[in-house]
Formats: sequence, C-alpha cells, structure tokens
Amino acid sequence: MVSFKYQSVAQSLAQLIDKGTLKPGERFPSLRRTMRSYSVSLSTANQAYAHLEDKGYIRAQAKSGYFVTRPASHRLIEPSKTTPPETSRSVVFQAPYLEMLEHASNPAYVPLGCAIPAPSLLAAEPLNALQARLLRSKGQQLNAYGSAQGLPELRREIAKLMCLHGSTVSQEEIVITSGCTEALGLALQTLTQPGDTIAVESPAYFGLLQVLERLKLKAWELPTSRDGIDPSALELALKSGTVTAVALSSSFTNPLGTMMPEPVKRSVLKLLDGYKTPLIEDDTYGGLGFGGCRPAPFFSLPHETEIFYCSSFSKTLAPGYRTGWIRAPGRIAQVTKAKFSASVCNPLAPQLALAEFLSSRDFERHVSRMARRMETNVARARRAIAQSFPAGTRVTHPDGGFVLWVEMDKNIDTTKLYYKALNQNICFAPGSLFTASGLYAHCLRISCGDVWSDALESAIHRLGTLACEELGNQQSEETFRLPSISRTD
Amino acid sequence: MVSFKYQSVAQSLAQLIDKGTLKPGERFPSLRRTMRSYSVSLSTANQAYAHLEDKGYIRAQAKSGYFVTRPASHRLIEPSKTTPPETSRSVVFQAPYLEMLEHASNPAYVPLGCAIPAPSLLAAEPLNALQARLLRSKGQQLNAYGSAQGLPELRREIAKLMCLHGSTVSQEEIVITSGCTEALGLALQTLTQPGDTIAVESPAYFGLLQVLERLKLKAWELPTSRDGIDPSALELALKSGTVTAVALSSSFTNPLGTMMPEPVKRSVLKLLDGYKTPLIEDDTYGGLGFGGCRPAPFFSLPHETEIFYCSSFSKTLAPGYRTGWIRAPGRIAQVTKAKFSASVCNPLAPQLALAEFLSSRDFERHVSRMARRMETNVARARRAIAQSFPAGTRVTHPDGGFVLWVEMDKNIDTTKLYYKALNQNICFAPGSLFTASGLYAHCLRISCGDVWSDALESAIHRLGTLACEELGNQQSEETFRLPSISRTD
Repeated sequence: MVSFKYQSVAQSLAQLIDKGTLKPGERFPSLRRTMRSYSVSLSTANQAYAHLEDKGYIRAQAKSGYFVTRPASHRLIEPSKTTPPETSRSVVFQAPYLEMLEHASNPAYVPLGCAIPAPSLLAAEPLNALQARLLRSKGQQLNAYGSAQGLPELRREIAKLMCLHGSTVSQEEIVITSGCTEALGLALQTLTQPGDTIAVESPAYFGLLQVLERLKLKAWELPTSRDGIDPSALELALKSGTVTAVALSSSFTNPLGTMMPEPVKRSVLKLLDGYKTPLIEDDTYGGLGFGGCRPAPFFSLPHETEIFYCSSFSKTLAPGYRTGWIRAPGRIAQVTKAKFSASVCNPLAPQLALAEFLSSRDFERHVSRMARRMETNVARARRAIAQSFPAGTRVTHPDGGFVLWVEMDKNIDTTKLYYKALNQNICFAPGSLFTASGLYAHCLRISCGDVWSDALESAIHRLGTLACEELGNQQSEETFRLPSISRTD
Repeated sequence: MVSFKYQSVAQSLAQLIDKGTLKPGERFPSLRRTMRSYSVSLSTANQAYAHLEDKGYIRAQAKSGYFVTRPASHRLIEPSKTTPPETSRSVVFQAPYLEMLEHASNPAYVPLGCAIPAPSLLAAEPLNALQARLLRSKGQQLNAYGSAQGLPELRREIAKLMCLHGSTVSQEEIVITSGCTEALGLALQTLTQPGDTIAVESPAYFGLLQVLERLKLKAWELPTSRDGIDPSALELALKSGTVTAVALSSSFTNPLGTMMPEPVKRSVLKLLDGYKTPLIEDDTYGGLGFGGCRPAPFFSLPHETEIFYCSSFSKTLAPGYRTGWIRAPGRIAQVTKAKFSASVCNPLAPQLALAEFLSSRDFERHVSRMARRMETNVARARRAIAQSFPAGTRVTHPDGGFVLWVEMDKNIDTTKLYYKALNQNICFAPGSLFTASGLYAHCLRISCGDVWSDALESAIHRLGTLACEELGNQQSEETFRLPSISRTD
C-alpha cells in the first residue's frame, strides 16, 4: 500500500539494500542524488530517508551523510540441525491443516499460512487468456477424457524444461498429475506396501506427511540443517533395513528452505545406490532460486537407484490449474495405471493451455521475475521478524523459495498462537504440521509469497508481539522468569 | 452421415419405431402420407421405404401397404444371472484397459470402447463459453488453491440436484472430487484397511475394480441379473463376516445396464442395516433413464447404515472437466482430509462454470435430451447386434445409460477379438476387464454414446462378423462343430 511519493522512493531505495546492491556499512546515496534520480523535492527525499531510518535500513552519521545499517535480520541466527528420533513413526494428523487451507483462500486473512504466491505475481492473465481461447475454439474436442498419461504436447514441454544440468528427458517418461501431491502419492503407491517406512526430512512438507498417513506408511524423520539431511543419519536409517524409499526435496525445501550442496546430494545418491533404495524427489521450488541459481536436481546427478521426480506449476504459474507431473523412466506403465485408478486423467483444456504457454519463452522469464520478487519478500520478512519476534528467535535464511521457518523458545506453543493470530486475521502454519514425531510445537512457517505491503509487514510484527505475549504469559504461568536476554535488534 | 434426402426421411421414420411410437405389427404411414408430411417426391419416399425394408424396419404387404416388422432385436435374449464364485478375490489387472482409454480419445477408432458420450452430444459449448468468460473476468482470483471440500457454489447446486425422491441434501455433506473415480477411492479409503473385502456387482465397472486393486482390497463378486444383485447372495457374503463395505451402482449399472427395482433396493438396505455394513453407491448414470424414468438412489430410501453417494458430470455434461462428488454426511472431515492428501483440491474455474451452468435450468433439459438420444442409440445398436453377431448371442436390454453387455459362445475370447477389431479400427471393452474372477472372457461391452452413423452401424456389423469368424476358427481348431443353430434374425 504505497500511497505517498516518499513511500515509493523509500521502497525503491530499500530494495537496493534488500537485494544486496548496497551492502551494510556502505555509504548510502546522498539526499541530493536521490532528489535528482527520482525527480522529487528535498522535502520528499527527507521524508523517505526518515522512513528508512525508522525502518532501520539506514543511519545518519554527523557530517558524513547516510550509511546502510547492518540490518537486524543479519544478526538472526539460523535454526540448528534438527534431532528427530532415530526410528520410524506412524503419521497421524490432528492439526488444523485443513482449516489453514480454507483460510488460505479467504481474503479476510493476512496470508502467511499457505505457501502460495499472490495471484497477481503468478502469470494468470496470459495463461487464462490462452485457455479461454482454447475453450472457445476447441472446446468440444477438449471436453473428453484424455490419455491417463497426460497430453503429449504438455509432456513434451515439460521434458524440455527438465533438460537441466546436462540430463536428457523424454516425454515418454512423464505422467501428468493433479499437482505434485498426486505425483508423490502415485510414486509412493508404486513403490510401497502399507506399513512400509519412508525416510523424510525433518521438518517435512506436511502434504507429504499426509500422503504417508493416507497410504498407511511410516515416516523415519532425518536430522536436517541448512545443508539438507544429514547423510550419516540417512545411512543409519538405511542400515536398519526397514526403509523402503526416501522422499526428499531437491532444493529450497518446504519448510526449511534448505539447499543441499551438490557434493552432499552426490553422497546421498551413493548411499541409496549402495542400499538399492529408491528416491522420490520433490522439485516444486527448484526454479525459485535467488540470484539466478538453479541447483541440480538429484535425477540429473550420477545414480543407479531409481528416482521418481515430482514437480508442479503450483508455486510458479498456476496453483488453480492443479497440474503437476512425475518422471519415472521404466515405471511409466505402473504409474499411469495408478493415475488412472486415482483420477482417470487430468482435464485437457488446462493441459493444452499450459503446453502453449510453456512453448513460448515467457515461462522462464516469468519464473526469474518471480524469484527476484520472492528474494525481496523473504529479506523483508526476515527483517520484520528480527524486529518483533521474541529474543533468541531463530529464522532460516533460504537461498530460494518463499517460506521461512521460525524457531522460538520451547515454551511457546504455536498451535495456541495460531488460534490467537486467527483472531487478528493472521494465518500461518504451526510447526506441529511438519512432523510425525510431535516435534516443532515451538516453531512456525511463514509464507512470503504475497505482494509485500505495510499490512503484511505489520501482520508479522503483530505475530511477533503475540509470540512475545505468549512467552510472557507462559513464563508468568510457570512462575519463573528466564534470564533476561538482550534483543538481537 | 445423412447425405441424401431419402436417408433423412428414412432416419426420421426409423426413430418412430426405435422410440416405440410405432409398435411391431402396426400399420406404417402410407407413401402418400409421407410425401405430404415430409414434402418429398414419390421417388424420394419410395427410396426411403426401400431403405427401411433393407434395414428390416418395415415390410410391404400386397395390397395392404406397409407394416412395422418385429425387429430382430426383440428376439434377442438377455444374459441370465451371473454366477461368480462365492468368495473374495484379490484384484489384479493385466488387461488392455489403459490402451482402451488411449484409443477412446483417438478419432481413428470407432468409439465402441469407452463409455463416453460424443462431445457433440454433451453441453460443451455453453459450459465452455461460461468458463472462458470466467477465466477472462475473474481469472486471477480463480488461479489459486480452493477449499479441499470444493467450491460452496457448486456444492449448493449439487445439493439441489440431489433433492430427489423426497430426500434433502445439504451442501455441507458434499465434497467435490476429480470425477467419480476419485470419489469411489476416497469412500473406500475412509472405510477400509488394505486386505479388506468389498462386495460388488459381477460384472462390475472396471474403474471400481482398479480402485480396489490400488487400495489392495479384495472383491467379493455377487450374482447379478437384470434386477441388479441377488440379495440372498449378498446375505451369504455378509454372513461370512469378511465384507467391510458394499459398492453398488444406483441405476443403469455399467456394464449390465440393470435397474434394481425399488423393493429389491429396500431389501438390500435392510440387509446392510442388519449387518451394519456401509454402502458406497455410484449413481453416475442415474439421470440417463429412458422414458423420463429417474429411479430412487439408495440414499433416498429408508436406511440406518452409512451410505457414501458418489457421482459425476462425466457421462452427462463434461468428462473433460473431471468433476465428480461424494456425499457422506457425518464423514465430511475424514473425506475432505482424504481429498486433500489425494490431490489437494479441484481447480476453481471449472467448478464455478459448472455451478453457473447448473443454476440455469439448462442442465435438466440437456440430460433429458441426451437420455432420449441414448435410448435411440441403444435400440439401434441392439438391432445391429441382432443382425450380425453369432447365433445365440445374448444382449442386455437396459432401461437407461448407454452401454450394452454382449454375452457370446464360451469359445469366443473377446480379448483376442479386441486386437482383431483394433486392426479394423474398432474399439470395444473386453469382458475380462469387468471381473476379478477371470470370468466373462466371452463377453464384451459396447458403448452406444457416439452420434449414430452408418459407419458406427457398419462397425457393429463388422464386429459381429469378426466374432462369427472367431467362433468358426475356434470350432475348426477344435475339430468339431456345434449343432447348427438357426440365426435369431
């Protein structure tokens, strides 16, 4: 909600810092220069600078001008490696995840809950115009069952997208699915029997855990840090002889936003080769790397084990199209059969519209643009968290995607906090959704996918205040006080 | 393919017979009257009558004019009650069903295979125009995740449709699904554990059997006749104590086209009440009754047991929209959760387009029109079968829907016949798809959903000829001949 000229100037200057063009400690453009660059009056430039000082972006130094502050978020500590129990657990969901999904589409709530970009950031218009045109011109042909494997035109475009890091993919290896969730379900159904154990990240994407619950599979959660899962913990799990398959994110995992370095990926694949254990990789966020980074997915690295690659357009283009895919060379007949018995086939019109959209060069440009937006949003959200969350709060510092994982004092129950925040029309994802082991009740996930606004920023601040209150109440209830910790900002 | 005037006159007159306006043995309109009614020359009327004589619709009687022939299809015997084994079987599919689905969307094949109405018979245009308009006007809002339960506007319209036979349905009891197949899967997942047994019709809809296979459930096939399943056989199955749920079609079952009389439905429900066994009913074809008949679904009759009602718009309106639903009062939270973990939610734009279409009165008019078309198609297909299939062939005589079940000599293998027919660009559904007990290898299902044409009729004749050849080969291979049977036409 930029309504005054000074606000738009301040926002533009803040982006220079958020995007790293101006580094902490560096000299900030002079007032005179800003007046010239933006063609604004001295009064407007002054207002903008005052605003930036308020927000903690810059500080005035007597007789020397303005300097970029080291932003509070730079002092935020990242969560340390998680320590889930070294065993498998049945997955049982009691948490308010369905409610969260309902609230995600309710404009009354500030959308920090569901990991979904704002509709205006997605390429809805050109894609919808394409589909509208197809419905008018070929609607009758498109109102039919399609092939269970999916429209060849769309599979071909996806195969082109997947030719990453030197790998070659054929459209014959791909099955179109109702989003990545169905893809994960089909992969797991193809590989497992009820009661089997799947090794996953911890915390893990709750959608994956829910698929495990539905298929009556157990989760073996693996310690996970900024660099992804710990390979030695994976080896321990594999040694147990009970793990049927491993399901990992390729990059920018949800909720941790971690990016496993390529050497770690290679060693994970070696382990899987050794134990002949198949991998299901979820690369939904892979295209949303910051600074143009597109990490290698597992399937593009040397491997002998079977890899089921799952992805979707839900985070980059069209959540409303419910279109994902799975690549499983050598298992296409099985996966296609599973798709048929799950939902027969995907609708034809959205598939054809997507295929036409992808065949233009617009998609890659659009995704880069979106990644840049997300990078800024994530930086701003981290800054807002640093400013208002309880002292000692740890926050991830992702290299892509648009979710943040916030770890607070163990005394905070984020499910309680969830309902308090809802009362203030703020939605977020409580940490307990992301585990089968009853962990992370003091954590939460914040989605930074929405268009940044003062309202959004103030919602994060209010959430921080609620968390501080919760911690305060908690401490008074327990009739003791933690040693006073100096705030990190 | 009506290309001459006389053909259109003949087609119109044939409909009078197919639809029962003119009964066998009745006097047929005179040539003079037809000349007047259709404003055609004597020569055209003569040609039309000659064509009708050729097709076996009418016969000339010296000095008395023309009379309606008793059509050959009236002499077709219906299949008798099936006799599947009185036990449960695991479901394992090897049959060419995926191929069949691929061929269903291939215009090179005469579409007798997949049970799908021709796109031109579905109300594609107005619905597609609606969706196109929505994509242009509200596309950004619609490019988002929706509620897992489904769009309230669509659920409300479906609830209205379901207020049949005095029952009242609320939108809160409904979950929108990716077609009826997903609905059946969600119902079964909610009710069962892998290894459980489900009692089904025999033959059963192959889509249902494939869901059982995917969920690792066993099928207990029940003897089925024109009047649906045999309640005493159901009681035997229930008495075994191994049946977790029963899955039946409400009306015009696929493939038998049977319509269980209401008293039988009531006694089935009493049995299920007594054994506290839930029912999953599939009412996909319920609206397509001939002569305006809309039989009561199970859920609208008195019952205590739990009923999961599943249906879809795939056979009446929009197979391409992949939209079905499930009504499960008292289980909505569980079913919604299962839907979320299966495919998160249905796309929003098709849901809103359907809701708007249903809120007009067009839907019911459209379905009645379609049922009338299907009644004529089914009559014509039965006639064509009677004319060309091997002597002794039995064919169902359905009261609704648009599939025919054809039972031939036990020596015919319809899977072999399937591949031979494909070579002639004809697709049908082999009988072995419809059972888990290795039955019905000598049966096949013919879909009559396409626009009737000479090409379609001639494809049925060619299929009959292939079946006769197959039987002939079979007999020569076995070096004996069956006693000569007089052809029924």
